[in-house]
Amino acid sequence: MGVLSVAVVILSGGLDSSTAAYWAHSQGYGVHCLTFKYGQRAQREVEAARQIAGSLGVPHKVVDLASLEDIYRGATSLVDQTLEVSKEFTPNLIVPFRNGVFLSVAVAYADSIGANTVIYGAHGDDEPFYPDCREEFYRAFQEAARLGTGRELEVFSPWRGLGKADIVARALELGVPLEKTWSCYLEGPIHCGVCESCVNRRKAFQAAGVADPTEYASG
Amino acid sequence: MGVLSVAVVILSGGLDSSTAAYWAHSQGYGVHCLTFKYGQRAQREVEAARQIAGSLGVPHKVVDLASLEDIYRGATSLVDQTLEVSKEFTPNLIVPFRNGVFLSVAVAYADSIGANTVIYGAHGDDEPFYPDCREEFYRAFQEAARLGTGRELEVFSPWRGLGKADIVARALELGVPLEKTWSCYLEGPIHCGVCESCVNRRKAFQAAGVADPTEYASG
Repeated sequence: MGVLSVAVVILSGGLDSSTAAYWAHSQGYGVHCLTFKYGQRAQREVEAARQIAGSLGVPHKVVDLASLEDIYRGATSLVDQTLEVSKEFTPNLIVPFRNGVFLSVAVAYADSIGANTVIYGAHGDDEPFYPDCREEFYRAFQEAARLGTGRELEVFSPWRGLGKADIVARALELGVPLEKTWSCYLEGPIHCGVCESCVNRRKAFQAAGVADPTEYASG
Repeated sequence: MGVLSVAVVILSGGLDSSTAAYWAHSQGYGVHCLTFKYGQRAQREVEAARQIAGSLGVPHKVVDLASLEDIYRGATSLVDQTLEVSKEFTPNLIVPFRNGVFLSVAVAYADSIGANTVIYGAHGDDEPFYPDCREEFYRAFQEAARLGTGRELEVFSPWRGLGKADIVARALELGVPLEKTWSCYLEGPIHCGVCESCVNRRKAFQAAGVADPTEYASG
């Protein structure tokens, strides 16, 4: 990889993708961050993404896919506010093929601006639950992206095989302002502390032996 | 395929995808049509899609991806109105990875409603010019979709290896109301008759030896 490689990084504003953006920048990629609004409850994460891209000093584009809400209604509690957000993993926390949709728009953007790399923050702890976080998925997607654009794209996550605690450790090394990241599935003024995503965040800091800068409402 | 198979059909309102929707219906699929707004000049095609789905009497969903306009600015004349729409094929008629984006949303929708098939209208005449119309692309995409959803999805075009003239012939057999379809890249009251898409439409009717019901402004 030369210093002129340009990467589109999918940035949700959470811990994993924010650290992926910092990682890509540290590797010498010209980073372009891409954030999606898709009708998710936690609009706070979009603001977190803005702050992370701002801290890194790189271009940031927010793409509004809010009309996907209509597609996802009934399928996932992260979009459909009539469904309860579970404290433990349940299938209704899965937003169907979300990473497939995000990666496809990222590939379209990469092809438009002449970038050859698309990076997202999938990691080992998510692989058992979320099929679109697995390496076999993004390798297949990379093949489709190459064939569909005629461009030698690379599509990957730097966190393959790593857990969220490992990412916390990498974030510290890379100087990621973790206090600016947002993980909570809900839209409170601070992290709720009890949804599945907050639980995973807390556990990751504990497992990494790192002080958690996050203010939690309870738990 | 049993009679209970459900298919999401990507319907632009043009000749190829309208005939694909009619074909799927004739094969016994439960057809759900999906149309995209993505900042394209020709909003008329969305209205054409509504009419085709209405004629077929099947559910129709229009997904507004208009904020993709921001992604595609500068890359394609079909979205960026500061670029000229060419009369012959030029790279700026390519909307980068458009079918990849559309197929990924269609897969998300299929997974949400429990459909096992995604159909679009790519055909042989487009294959040399548009990489995301080629069979090797949609086979790879199908693999990514299966891995990313854990569902045994099929993703294909019924027009593999066929040209647009063949599709006109199939449309007649299937009773597609071709006068309701819209192919023109521009947004006039009637088809312009001279853009690349109108030229291909006219040629297809001529080659099929079929009377063309389309009213063209010139050419």
